[in-house]
Amino acid sequence: MVLLENRILKDGKVYPGSILKVDSFLNHQMDVELLNEIGKEFKRIYSDCEVNKILTIEASGIGIACITAQFFNCPVLFAKKTKTKNIAGTVYKTQVKSYTHGTTYDVIVSKEFLGKNDKVLIIDDFLAEGNALLGLIDLCNQAGAEVVGCGIAVEKGFQPGSKRIREKGVRVESLAVIDSMDDGEIKFK
Amino acid sequence: MVLLENRILKDGKVYPGSILKVDSFLNHQMDVELLNEIGKEFKRIYSDCEVNKILTIEASGIGIACITAQFFNCPVLFAKKTKTKNIAGTVYKTQVKSYTHGTTYDVIVSKEFLGKNDKVLIIDDFLAEGNALLGLIDLCNQAGAEVVGCGIAVEKGFQPGSKRIREKGVRVESLAVIDSMDDGEIKFK
Repeated sequence: MVLLENRILKDGKVYPGSILKVDSFLNHQMDVELLNEIGKEFKRIYSDCEVNKILTIEASGIGIACITAQFFNCPVLFAKKTKTKNIAGTVYKTQVKSYTHGTTYDVIVSKEFLGKNDKVLIIDDFLAEGNALLGLIDLCNQAGAEVVGCGIAVEKGFQPGSKRIREKGVRVESLAVIDSMDDGEIKFK
Repeated sequence: MVLLENRILKDGKVYPGSILKVDSFLNHQMDVELLNEIGKEFKRIYSDCEVNKILTIEASGIGIACITAQFFNCPVLFAKKTKTKNIAGTVYKTQVKSYTHGTTYDVIVSKEFLGKNDKVLIIDDFLAEGNALLGLIDLCNQAGAEVVGCGIAVEKGFQPGSKRIREKGVRVESLAVIDSMDDGEIKFK
């Protein structure tokens, strides 16, 4: 998606350790107009898949997921990173290792909101190691829900995430795939 | 807002300790069509305030904030609950006590994205004790940004949050204000 690639080139910042910051427009401050174009593109890609639920994980996936859901006329469900007392009753639970924070945390969704009749599009802002997505796919599997595919805004193509997801038989569509960030210069696939 | 009140009566669940669960449509699973009506209503209320930034706090405020931002044609900034290594550089920081979790946590926004030229509408899903909102107002004050007001989906009117915010001289507009939840029966103001 040229619009997103150009925005990354214009406003993305590369830091040592293959860290790409896009927090001026994607995952801290959010350009909602850009999110709208992203959502439209996901709809184009997955238009024939009868998606009836969008699943994401807190926090930075929620904005993209909600804007995208407007094009699919379906609800958004976001997985939560710990069990709070506001989530009573039974939940599906999985564990996710955070590449960013170097920790492992529980991720849950309420059993009430994910089930056999759901055709789920998983949405997230970033794909690197793929741990968050694998966790979300696991939650869908536990619920017996069908995963139609994953829609990712920015993929670090030099990390193994998308390969790991595809090995599970799950479709991955990333709107901007970064091939390399050597010497601070971003190159796309 | 009658639409929201009716939805709370239909799908909200009351638990002991004045806990209201609206997680089937507002803050776990999200009905994006309802969020759209909520956003439209915030725009109606704050239409003449020249809002140029919407501020919220992760995670459950983000969806409402993003949908609302579409009506204001402005970006969303969401405050984060801990300092991650993806946020380099300087941040504004405040502390918020969580009524839900019984803990105190740091809340940050990058200094880059909040400043003197911002006319900020603060959006959140819930208002009870008001601690999160007071924290967001503090961040705006630190940044020299003007707080136009707060837009809240559901307020527990029997808790002191809105009074505490108004004592700071900040406008609060809640779309559904719960007067009481005695014996599981929800009454609105």
